[in-house]
Amino acid sequence: MEETKKTYLLTPGPLTVPAEIKAEMLRDHSPNAATHMAMTSAIRAYCLEICNGTDTHACVPIQGSATYGVEAGLHTLVPRETSRILVVENGFYGQRLAEIATGARFSVSVLSLPMLPLPTEADIEAALEADPAITHIMICHAETGTGVLNPVAMVADVARRHGKELMIDAVASFGGFPIDAAALDALAIFISPNKCLESVPGVALVVARRDALEASAGRSPAVVLDLHAQWRFMEEKGAWRWTPPTHVVAALAKGCERHRAEGLEARAARYRANWRRLVDGLRQRGFETLLPDEIAAPIIATFKDPADPAYDFRSFYAAMEKRGFIIFPGRLTAAGTFRIGVMGDLDESDMTLVLAAIDESLAEIGVATEPA
Amino acid sequence: MEETKKTYLLTPGPLTVPAEIKAEMLRDHSPNAATHMAMTSAIRAYCLEICNGTDTHACVPIQGSATYGVEAGLHTLVPRETSRILVVENGFYGQRLAEIATGARFSVSVLSLPMLPLPTEADIEAALEADPAITHIMICHAETGTGVLNPVAMVADVARRHGKELMIDAVASFGGFPIDAAALDALAIFISPNKCLESVPGVALVVARRDALEASAGRSPAVVLDLHAQWRFMEEKGAWRWTPPTHVVAALAKGCERHRAEGLEARAARYRANWRRLVDGLRQRGFETLLPDEIAAPIIATFKDPADPAYDFRSFYAAMEKRGFIIFPGRLTAAGTFRIGVMGDLDESDMTLVLAAIDESLAEIGVATEPA
Repeated sequence: MEETKKTYLLTPGPLTVPAEIKAEMLRDHSPNAATHMAMTSAIRAYCLEICNGTDTHACVPIQGSATYGVEAGLHTLVPRETSRILVVENGFYGQRLAEIATGARFSVSVLSLPMLPLPTEADIEAALEADPAITHIMICHAETGTGVLNPVAMVADVARRHGKELMIDAVASFGGFPIDAAALDALAIFISPNKCLESVPGVALVVARRDALEASAGRSPAVVLDLHAQWRFMEEKGAWRWTPPTHVVAALAKGCERHRAEGLEARAARYRANWRRLVDGLRQRGFETLLPDEIAAPIIATFKDPADPAYDFRSFYAAMEKRGFIIFPGRLTAAGTFRIGVMGDLDESDMTLVLAAIDESLAEIGVATEPA
Repeated sequence: MEETKKTYLLTPGPLTVPAEIKAEMLRDHSPNAATHMAMTSAIRAYCLEICNGTDTHACVPIQGSATYGVEAGLHTLVPRETSRILVVENGFYGQRLAEIATGARFSVSVLSLPMLPLPTEADIEAALEADPAITHIMICHAETGTGVLNPVAMVADVARRHGKELMIDAVASFGGFPIDAAALDALAIFISPNKCLESVPGVALVVARRDALEASAGRSPAVVLDLHAQWRFMEEKGAWRWTPPTHVVAALAKGCERHRAEGLEARAARYRANWRRLVDGLRQRGFETLLPDEIAAPIIATFKDPADPAYDFRSFYAAMEKRGFIIFPGRLTAAGTFRIGVMGDLDESDMTLVLAAIDESLAEIGVATEPA
């Protein structure tokens, strides 16, 4: 077998996956074998456990990317005829939620807010009062388009007071930030395996409130996006309704084991230390972050492009890529920025390598920085 | 890294994946990196090449299992209001096509035929004449529920004569049996990476006629199942519309390379030799196949349960599994049978091991066989 060099994916995900997780993909599993069903079951139980959903919610995995989970959740859990969804958005991934809900032909109202300040109770209440038809609120937890961590507990309070259902896109945050499905009384929490769970892409997971899931039989107009049917099938047979990506599932089972062993708090602390090191390092070199530190989700950092006219993102990206480090452009919603993610199989020693690669790359493309 | 023992998945798929393909999953790729986009592009081009679709069709991959490809094809390519789909079924996977089309809320007529004889021109014509509203015909090529290889060229002729569109579930057959998208004038051919292409599950591929794909903008009521949008995104940006299962894509790119290197004919010959060896071996031991050889798709063999009262499938399965060989139960549509697949990283020397494991397993559960 070829020697595999570590590739640093310093992105909002997919990210640098621990070798131990990828090694699980060297084995073939039959989807109906007891071993594979046990992995599926362990993943489902663990995702509920870390969000305190065991008594109130069910975790339903679905083949595809995280967006598949979001759309399956909408089609399955939201009664189309009687619902109107308020999407609270303050960045690219909030906008994507609106795009999915609209494309899935739901009635949607978008509350577009600036990146800062953070959404307030008054913002949400005003939107609800202006449009009494709204039945559901949807918001992104860690908005990696900018790096903002949204105040989901506040939104849950407002939702509860007004009798609205709440759906949370926790794709980038799940496993790295505490979230309490029961306390938030969330209708749905959307999860990705390839962010803070540090595994590979290929499935989505939806933590759905069990009463709502039970009431959703036959609602989805798309067979493969029917979370209720997938849930019943898994409960009754232990297997997936359609062929699962068996190798991806095996990787995620290991990802959950590793997450349990490290612990959410320790993982969050590791990411925070990576982030601190990166942000401090780039500030020393004259870079500015898009956000003040106290607002930022310490899993990704967004930097403003340097003023030096020699800088352009494509050259910087290429110089970094040549060195084995993949960085990420800014989103249109935050133009003139670039992003560096710190999730995945990374610690402070890796961040030292990242900073060194940044120095080399900027020198190569002729961008002057302040001495570090 | 742990030593990984070969697991024999003797099923209709997922199957025994060559180690060289799985090794590709040890590397992380960013979905937007040039390397990953090149892999996607090579996969798409190769799938068109082996079905003679390069000039007339487009290959659109989609995240999920093969069933996702089928449903995405329906939602995207079939105008719901003016269409009625005739599903020709003679086994479990034909029935599944009807289940998907019905669940996706299309107008569906099912032509249910016995396992044998094979569907005839007269069968299809009678169904079309009885129901002039039919606009589309859908059929499974290799019906692995029984092992029957359906006569798709005949069905294509009938479809053309009657001015009907044709959709072919080539999930189990693609890469192992020749199929000519242009000659069949197929609206859609549904493909899996984890059958005769010998790669891992996690994506589906749809070969769609380009004129129909072009006319399908905005039709799909499910955002993630919109093949048109995925196709345009890939054509314009080279990347997938939503996060792809990057490791699965890397594996499939290697799977396509290996398929090209071996050649479809040689691969088909290898499967045929595996199948011959297995069928002859089990017949020598007193087993009977469900099908006469000339009807069977030589990628899976369906055997009738032995008459010996000591036999039961669960015990046989468990005894085989203990030895590292996963076999497959019969489908309800072919009760009293079990199945052994011969696709994947298998040659005649592997089949010798399979036969030895069968002997040991039957002895262990106390089933007498004729001396081999």
